[in-house]
Amino acid sequence: MLNALLPLLLAQAAPAAAPPPKPYDATPADWKAIPDDEVLIFTLANGRRVVVRLAARYTPVHVANIRAIARAKWWDGETVYRVQDNYVAQWGDATEKKPLPPGVVANPPAEYVWPRFDAVATLTKPDPYATKAGYSRDGWPIATNGREAWIPHCYGMVGVARDLAPSTGSGGDLYANIGHAPRHLDRNIAIVGRVIEGIDALSTLPRGTGGGLGLYEDPKQYVPIATARLASDLPAAERPRYQYRDTTNARFKLWIAARENREPPFFTVPAGGADICNALPPVRKAP
Amino acid sequence: MLNALLPLLLAQAAPAAAPPPKPYDATPADWKAIPDDEVLIFTLANGRRVVVRLAARYTPVHVANIRAIARAKWWDGETVYRVQDNYVAQWGDATEKKPLPPGVVANPPAEYVWPRFDAVATLTKPDPYATKAGYSRDGWPIATNGREAWIPHCYGMVGVARDLAPSTGSGGDLYANIGHAPRHLDRNIAIVGRVIEGIDALSTLPRGTGGGLGLYEDPKQYVPIATARLASDLPAAERPRYQYRDTTNARFKLWIAARENREPPFFTVPAGGADICNALPPVRKAP
Repeated sequence: MLNALLPLLLAQAAPAAAPPPKPYDATPADWKAIPDDEVLIFTLANGRRVVVRLAARYTPVHVANIRAIARAKWWDGETVYRVQDNYVAQWGDATEKKPLPPGVVANPPAEYVWPRFDAVATLTKPDPYATKAGYSRDGWPIATNGREAWIPHCYGMVGVARDLAPSTGSGGDLYANIGHAPRHLDRNIAIVGRVIEGIDALSTLPRGTGGGLGLYEDPKQYVPIATARLASDLPAAERPRYQYRDTTNARFKLWIAARENREPPFFTVPAGGADICNALPPVRKAP
Repeated sequence: MLNALLPLLLAQAAPAAAPPPKPYDATPADWKAIPDDEVLIFTLANGRRVVVRLAARYTPVHVANIRAIARAKWWDGETVYRVQDNYVAQWGDATEKKPLPPGVVANPPAEYVWPRFDAVATLTKPDPYATKAGYSRDGWPIATNGREAWIPHCYGMVGVARDLAPSTGSGGDLYANIGHAPRHLDRNIAIVGRVIEGIDALSTLPRGTGGGLGLYEDPKQYVPIATARLASDLPAAERPRYQYRDTTNARFKLWIAARENREPPFFTVPAGGADICNALPPVRKAP
């Protein structure tokens, strides 16, 4: 039943750039460079790479910490020590003993929310966690309750593990969402980035069994991190380059409409709306 | 930073039955048996087991097909042939050539929706795909737009692959959602079950690379299915037994409220609502 499956596959595929182009397709000029100092590359000892775009504009203190941690090579030799099904993969220092590099703020300001919802395009409908959700001009998904704004906990978003509130986390221990968006964490924890390449290197890891919480019980299960580097700290020729789609033009608004109303012939009933985590702003590796 | 991660873990854990019990905790009598003929056990050749509860009451023609396919041992020796990150794992006959067993309806009625929203408890807020979502008396999540009702495409839900609309699928090729709920598929395809054990046997599989659609390009990548059996076709002593939580009492309504408003000390800001896919009706293996 390969016929039976291909349409299902097509249904999920990003709007295809098949001829003739659709009015919502990106033009080459719609792709904007992600700054090299927002690109953090984790290379696992197994050779897989997990690349995170840092939300430097929204969470500057956390991102300053993360850059300092990367530059100190603090993550080199650390591990992914927790993988909980339909929730998160988490990495950093499982021993809790490694001192933070100089200059890293152990408990930064929360940076969970900010006052202004600076979306340049929005979705049609509210969701149970936000009255409005949309897109920043630099390619981030954002949500609001009318009083404050934040980055929602979608698949692939990267957050900072912390102790009980009101404690905050340094950024040394990070997690990525690998299942249905745990939006109840919105406004309760700092989202500092998004995995833009290699999320499957985390989402396919064996689930841990510790405490019913996905902890690897035997340190032999830990998945070692070989290195973590900012692209901006690599020689220019070695930097991987990524792009986000321009969210400010009419084509992008048509793209939103197409996400909210999937098209025939596979779909017979358009939803009339979309959840921000099913309509994440497009990113890609630079061609 | 183990302290830093444990609270995050606790945050996701189902309400704990720690002493003293919470008013929303299930009592032993709250756990109801899932009928054996609704339990379909796929055993992979690697020894992992994926157990599906069939939505027999909502999708009777599809489920009759699926039971007939299982009884004919049609899936034995077939494969998981597609795994697309943040979308679905799909299994059945990758060759498209295997004849269906006698009595199986090749194109059943759609059974995508039904007229009555028979929820006995509901969530507080709408979502972008439904005006209301809630729980049936026998432990299924259901959604409605006020005119019709359906089972939403949440993590772990099992659907029937089909060709382009208006074609429907026999049930020989099934998929399970392994990422953020693709709710745009709601009302466009039949959900016939829910994985109640072993979803990680699918969600941890390597992602396929075919067509950008998660197809395994080399048949050597296929993950073989050893057997597929209904629990009701096994000797009584060998049947695994599962239970769903009673959704009809006040304790369950308190459970919903607790899912919508996660508690301190980890959470400082309750969401005031939840997405049905973040509040799936509890199921468990019988103790």
